[in-house]
Amino acid sequence: MPTLVLLRHGQSQWNLDNRFTGWVDVDITEAGRQEALKAGELMKAEGLRFDFAHTSVLKRAIRTLNTALEVMDQLWVPVEKTWRLNERHYGALQGLDKAETTAKHGEAQVKIWRRSYDVPPPAMDLKDPGHPANDLRYAKLDVKALPGTESLATTLDRVLPYWHDAIAPQLKAQQTVLVTAHGNSLRALYKYLTDVTEAQILEINIPTGIPLLFDLDDALKVKSFRYLGDPDAAKRAAEAVANQAKAGKH
Amino acid sequence: MPTLVLLRHGQSQWNLDNRFTGWVDVDITEAGRQEALKAGELMKAEGLRFDFAHTSVLKRAIRTLNTALEVMDQLWVPVEKTWRLNERHYGALQGLDKAETTAKHGEAQVKIWRRSYDVPPPAMDLKDPGHPANDLRYAKLDVKALPGTESLATTLDRVLPYWHDAIAPQLKAQQTVLVTAHGNSLRALYKYLTDVTEAQILEINIPTGIPLLFDLDDALKVKSFRYLGDPDAAKRAAEAVANQAKAGKH
Repeated sequence: MPTLVLLRHGQSQWNLDNRFTGWVDVDITEAGRQEALKAGELMKAEGLRFDFAHTSVLKRAIRTLNTALEVMDQLWVPVEKTWRLNERHYGALQGLDKAETTAKHGEAQVKIWRRSYDVPPPAMDLKDPGHPANDLRYAKLDVKALPGTESLATTLDRVLPYWHDAIAPQLKAQQTVLVTAHGNSLRALYKYLTDVTEAQILEINIPTGIPLLFDLDDALKVKSFRYLGDPDAAKRAAEAVANQAKAGKH
Repeated sequence: MPTLVLLRHGQSQWNLDNRFTGWVDVDITEAGRQEALKAGELMKAEGLRFDFAHTSVLKRAIRTLNTALEVMDQLWVPVEKTWRLNERHYGALQGLDKAETTAKHGEAQVKIWRRSYDVPPPAMDLKDPGHPANDLRYAKLDVKALPGTESLATTLDRVLPYWHDAIAPQLKAQQTVLVTAHGNSLRALYKYLTDVTEAQILEINIPTGIPLLFDLDDALKVKSFRYLGDPDAAKRAAEAVANQAKAGKH
């Protein structure tokens, strides 16, 4: 049976500092590493044996994946790292904290960027050293493919080609696949898989470090999905993410 | 210019315990992790920017690679893990220590297995739980491809197809490539690249945790090669490996 597990990376330094992160390559904290260890334990207890794992090119996801695979004694599992699973690009807001952003753009505008489905923040300039065009890890890509800002809608648009070309064929071949990524790239997959509306997906918060397991049928239709481990713990963690988002954290 | 770096994994628990390891998936020790950190520092100081990295499917090589890439802040580099870069399969000797092996097979015979170029130890039975045919990570391979024992000669025979199909094309494309693997799979590449004789390669010892950098021309002919960092440290480490081999360690 095709089995898909989505895993959001553990706490990063900027989650802690309440700054817009996006594509900035911030590391996980020690608490984030502990979450990754716990995620590995949960997947091991479930008896999961992965055929393949996918992750972004951002270290907070890669380290979460490596740590979880170590715990599972499955470091040998093939891994593909792709920019298409990166976090939503937060444009010119990347690096700012909530207070700075509100001072610069006003409360009402910030709320729109954070809570709307398809309104992106102002774009980062192509010459900004923080623009992906100036980052070695994207040097082999056509610069026109690289976003300077994204909404959740455009994040979904760039995640889906990877789903269709890389992940779905493995699931169609009855494999067990792990995707370790970010709040919004995982939300994009969640929306696609569960067919929730644009309004509904904004209310759905994927907790960090708790594996979300989808049982799929041969046509990759979702038969059921659940968080591994204690359901109450997953619920509390999702609420914590929701409250963090309300407080302006991303 | 095509640049190739070979890196042997840091000390493993069975290096320390003086047991024949081969394909047994033994972890690195804390000293081994320190070696991996140091290797990362040396490659960072050299200003190396990898386009691609290759490793075996054994955790002592994978953890060494992950640790070094973390230090270099290049965790995003694509990695392929392949059984073709595994250590030499040590057949029925895997898991035995030197005293056990000598007691079982006699000093003279053990010396032949350890020091000859093309005499493999007795094969492990296909039904042995330690045979790769019974290990999930090789489940997608034709069982006939999986060795039950290997000499250095047959190790080279199974490493080379991967060189030709995966590594060489990247170098031909002017890329900088890291191969993190094992004493004998790296010796196989070393012999192929430098054209040393079968007798000479047996006297060459690649130290653990010290990156060996090859500058190649466009036809992948070796222009020069050197260990990164202090040349005396590399020499001492190679001698330590040689002495360890004389004492029966692998």
